[in-house]
Amino acid sequence: MNVAIITIGDELLIGQVINRNAAWIAEQCTNIGCSVIAHSVVGDQAEDLTSEIRRLGARCSALILTGGLGPTHDDITKFVLAEMAGDHMVVHQPWVDHLRAWLARRGRELTARNAGQAEVPSTAAVLHNPVGTAPGLWMTIEGTIVVALPGVPREMQALMTAEVLPRFASHVALEEGPIWTYHTLQTTGIAESNLADLIGEPSEFLGASTLAFLPNLQGVRLRIGVVGRSDAERTAERDRVRAILWNRAGRFIFGEGDRTLSEAVGLELAKRGHTIAVAESCTGGLLGAELTKVQGSSAWFLGGYLAYNNRVKISEVCVHPADLDRVGAVSQEVAEQLATGARVQIGTTWGIGITGIAGPGGGTAEKPVGTIWIALAGPGGVKATRFQFGDERHSNRERSVGAALGMLWTALKADS
Amino acid sequence: MNVAIITIGDELLIGQVINRNAAWIAEQCTNIGCSVIAHSVVGDQAEDLTSEIRRLGARCSALILTGGLGPTHDDITKFVLAEMAGDHMVVHQPWVDHLRAWLARRGRELTARNAGQAEVPSTAAVLHNPVGTAPGLWMTIEGTIVVALPGVPREMQALMTAEVLPRFASHVALEEGPIWTYHTLQTTGIAESNLADLIGEPSEFLGASTLAFLPNLQGVRLRIGVVGRSDAERTAERDRVRAILWNRAGRFIFGEGDRTLSEAVGLELAKRGHTIAVAESCTGGLLGAELTKVQGSSAWFLGGYLAYNNRVKISEVCVHPADLDRVGAVSQEVAEQLATGARVQIGTTWGIGITGIAGPGGGTAEKPVGTIWIALAGPGGVKATRFQFGDERHSNRERSVGAALGMLWTALKADS
Repeated sequence: MNVAIITIGDELLIGQVINRNAAWIAEQCTNIGCSVIAHSVVGDQAEDLTSEIRRLGARCSALILTGGLGPTHDDITKFVLAEMAGDHMVVHQPWVDHLRAWLARRGRELTARNAGQAEVPSTAAVLHNPVGTAPGLWMTIEGTIVVALPGVPREMQALMTAEVLPRFASHVALEEGPIWTYHTLQTTGIAESNLADLIGEPSEFLGASTLAFLPNLQGVRLRIGVVGRSDAERTAERDRVRAILWNRAGRFIFGEGDRTLSEAVGLELAKRGHTIAVAESCTGGLLGAELTKVQGSSAWFLGGYLAYNNRVKISEVCVHPADLDRVGAVSQEVAEQLATGARVQIGTTWGIGITGIAGPGGGTAEKPVGTIWIALAGPGGVKATRFQFGDERHSNRERSVGAALGMLWTALKADS
Repeated sequence: MNVAIITIGDELLIGQVINRNAAWIAEQCTNIGCSVIAHSVVGDQAEDLTSEIRRLGARCSALILTGGLGPTHDDITKFVLAEMAGDHMVVHQPWVDHLRAWLARRGRELTARNAGQAEVPSTAAVLHNPVGTAPGLWMTIEGTIVVALPGVPREMQALMTAEVLPRFASHVALEEGPIWTYHTLQTTGIAESNLADLIGEPSEFLGASTLAFLPNLQGVRLRIGVVGRSDAERTAERDRVRAILWNRAGRFIFGEGDRTLSEAVGLELAKRGHTIAVAESCTGGLLGAELTKVQGSSAWFLGGYLAYNNRVKISEVCVHPADLDRVGAVSQEVAEQLATGARVQIGTTWGIGITGIAGPGGGTAEKPVGTIWIALAGPGGVKATRFQFGDERHSNRERSVGAALGMLWTALKADS
């Protein structure tokens, strides 16, 4: 089943918004065995959208559109679809009723503008949007399935998950030809080139399958692609390649699929009945935010300190003022005292301390921007590591979080 | 000058990588007055790339390609360009010499694989890549400028900035026709439909200009598009529309351009010599992380507490155990004690407390998932507001941060 994704909006075209929706949709469709053959971004002009639907529709079984379903004058998607299908707009009364109740629960009245969202092309199936006022639409235009979804990510995701993916999966199940599916192993604590050396020449074991190395801030992902006519055939081949990779690089693999490093850390902590606290300076809460992204993190994450200002490091985390004077806030000593302070005061198995110069200001010859100290305190003592990242504030903070989680995961595995 | 962006790579097509490059390129091109008319993602197949270059080339003065310039077998871009131009590959000796010196400085030798990166189509202009081994290429194919850049963001950005954008800017300067430019006003504290009602029917004041409503988690952005032949003409028209919007909705506008809400809050705090501390439960550090994204935030953000576990709320932020027992952690009382505790203990002008049920677990009939209490403590006392968001953990946390920043911004403005 070939699928193309059209995301609609001038804000995407001019680069004001990053097109995260297309990546999310593509990943979900790929996971159920669809082939995504193109992504395209068009602006809020009816003729551009029409010609893109016609062009990609000719090459696909289904098109997924996001955006342009809102209540304002630049939202044109449903009118374009009606026009292309030679259809007219009707009021979908069940959606009017739903909207009225939905707004009432929020203490709001149904305005004319909101009621307009229940106007849909007469031949469209209306897809229930559980988290917003615009319904999704499912139509057939010139022989191609066209699905129109709101551009708001959580609305689009809710509709994809509940309404679109199950229907696509039934289409895929009816198909005859071979299809590609993908599986990812996630590593941490090893550089891409070292990982490649460890795994060896891929062509010697891949056969018709593929292997891609995809580095990100948490580590390097290994993506296996397999092709076959049946689930059983693809699963057997995937497991064959997977076993080779686990055998050669298993000690660096923290998870499979879209498992995140914080989820992997959470699982290892929960398995041992361990807990963790943090004391963050330059990351300002980013590590805590990443850990508490995980559902159920309250079982093992207790809390910590945002010790951004030195006064807070001293008064709340008991960092020694003399050390701050002598070696400065970005130092092994202070990182260790932050980690130990968090661990002892909150009363957890593990403590992490992060202190560094995220930039763009604050660098010196001795401690340039990108100098980060991360300490891990645990049952076996405390150990700090110095990292030298780059000159970009945002990425220095993100890489610090990735490094801290990697240190903790490695320590937990070594401990087992 | 019409521009289209083609990003190349199976990892983009299947959604494993988010297409940040296209947004970055589009924003830069738009800023210098180019019109970006399409973004397209294609996989690593020569025929798909060829047909996309032909299709979009027919509609544009210039195409920008990223990806597929690396040293491995799936990097096909330059061969496709040579084929389309009826050209042959040559070794570009200056780039061989550059590569040898570049690698020598890193203690490495020039390998055959690396030397291959100096092979380019004979009619291509070679663009200097200061941070990587693949040069950029500038060619003319079927009358259209085609620029090929590496897919690594920092290499692509370096080449765009130093080599591509200045040349595009000269093209734009030579053009006769009218060009579009954009300007954004950012609002907080008002829903999209209410904002639309406040502003009134856009067609009554827009003329040839455009206005788009772009909601995100921090509020609703208003993007003005203006068209004209000169900078002066466009600036005058932008200021005319801007004045109308400020006049009608000014009390909700926290900034212009790509200013974020945390930057706006930081500016208002800095202007008054005020400081802030936070105590976060369900957001687990996300608010602190958002505030410290801002360069120079150390001038006004002192720190705070990740009071995730109730024990930490009690021991570190002095929340009353009796209130936790009586009304629970997700309550007005606890939100207010978190805000006041952060403010008093850290010694800041303002304190924010957040406590809620992010989900997916933990909801009750009385306090369903998405119930969030946010309190703001300041010189005039403490005030808590209850929010009822949705059932998605990630978005509940993000919306809590947006709401907390909105409350602080509104309080700071009311105070002035």
